[in-house]
Amino acid sequence: MTSPRTRRLAVLASGRGSNFRALADAAARGTLGGTIAVLACDRGDAGAIELSRERGIPVELPDPGPSPRRLDAAAAPAWIERLRAHDVDTLLLAGFMRILPPTILDAFPGRVLNIHPSLLPAFPGLDAIARAFAHGVRQAGCTVHLVTAGIDDGPILGQAAVAVEDGDSVASLAERVHAAEHRLYPEVVRRFLGEPFAVVGRRVVWAAGERA
Amino acid sequence: MTSPRTRRLAVLASGRGSNFRALADAAARGTLGGTIAVLACDRGDAGAIELSRERGIPVELPDPGPSPRRLDAAAAPAWIERLRAHDVDTLLLAGFMRILPPTILDAFPGRVLNIHPSLLPAFPGLDAIARAFAHGVRQAGCTVHLVTAGIDDGPILGQAAVAVEDGDSVASLAERVHAAEHRLYPEVVRRFLGEPFAVVGRRVVWAAGERA
Repeated sequence: MTSPRTRRLAVLASGRGSNFRALADAAARGTLGGTIAVLACDRGDAGAIELSRERGIPVELPDPGPSPRRLDAAAAPAWIERLRAHDVDTLLLAGFMRILPPTILDAFPGRVLNIHPSLLPAFPGLDAIARAFAHGVRQAGCTVHLVTAGIDDGPILGQAAVAVEDGDSVASLAERVHAAEHRLYPEVVRRFLGEPFAVVGRRVVWAAGERA
Repeated sequence: MTSPRTRRLAVLASGRGSNFRALADAAARGTLGGTIAVLACDRGDAGAIELSRERGIPVELPDPGPSPRRLDAAAAPAWIERLRAHDVDTLLLAGFMRILPPTILDAFPGRVLNIHPSLLPAFPGLDAIARAFAHGVRQAGCTVHLVTAGIDDGPILGQAAVAVEDGDSVASLAERVHAAEHRLYPEVVRRFLGEPFAVVGRRVVWAAGERA
């Protein structure tokens, strides 16, 4: 068993890696409650890869299979093997654009987290910020949740609200939502790694709150 | 034409009238941008009625018809007549528990507002706070919106987020959501009465924001 202070984490990313950067910064400061032991990407042109190399974090690029939006079930064993080779017990999705097959969720039960750029359950799925903006919401935000078989539907670990301002565009709103993500995700990971909780129905009930 | 400063408003309520109280307090302070000319209720035991009498605001109790959840279409002409007798041009729903028929919306086109205790589009309909709590959200809130034929589906005029705290119960969360409603509703009414806006798609775009 590793202690909470030395938990080994994998980050899965497909894109520019701004959430990966926020997580890696927190780990470097010692405020994440764990170590990022590996970055796994589904595409070789992910910006996160360059960031990872700059920071000396190993990168894995297993074949994700033919579907552009899913990690293929046939590809899952290789992903699990490559992740386990780094002795990680927790997966942090950070702009990972493929739906995970059940075998990967089963390999890290209850220990796969995702961040989504809306106040779930509103605006699950793709283009959440643009859809919230077009809907005319005045409070946007982001959500860190446990990953389950449903899309953006797992128990909510943390949320941050971001007010829509008069004169906002999708781009200006997105900038503030992403900044909120970069604050929220490391905070919630630290809490997830350090504080017991129970899932009651679909509520996450933290031990500290119940003692209060 | 009345000037914005003397807009005459009707409040429609079914319950204890805490939002009615917040609106009446703002009107009395001169910060609502209008005068509450009448309270209309669908039930004679609404707590709002006593409040209204204390403040010298006329009360109307037109027959709402037989359905417990709708204002009957056959009853609508009497409601419209009784409201118009008070020379109001804007209706503020404040815990009014019946769906309005199209004839009432058509009689006050684009000038019927409602407050709902969730961050719409999440949790429309009844028991919104309890449903949000059971869903495990960490950001609850409230929404003021224009009323359209859809349930809690009209363009959003304003929203306030309310963080769910560790150890919250539905009751403790509801108390803070209601407090947020009592701040939000008068602010949004003032803005609605005083500042031009356009509905673009389903976004409310305020003139001040576009000039910014």
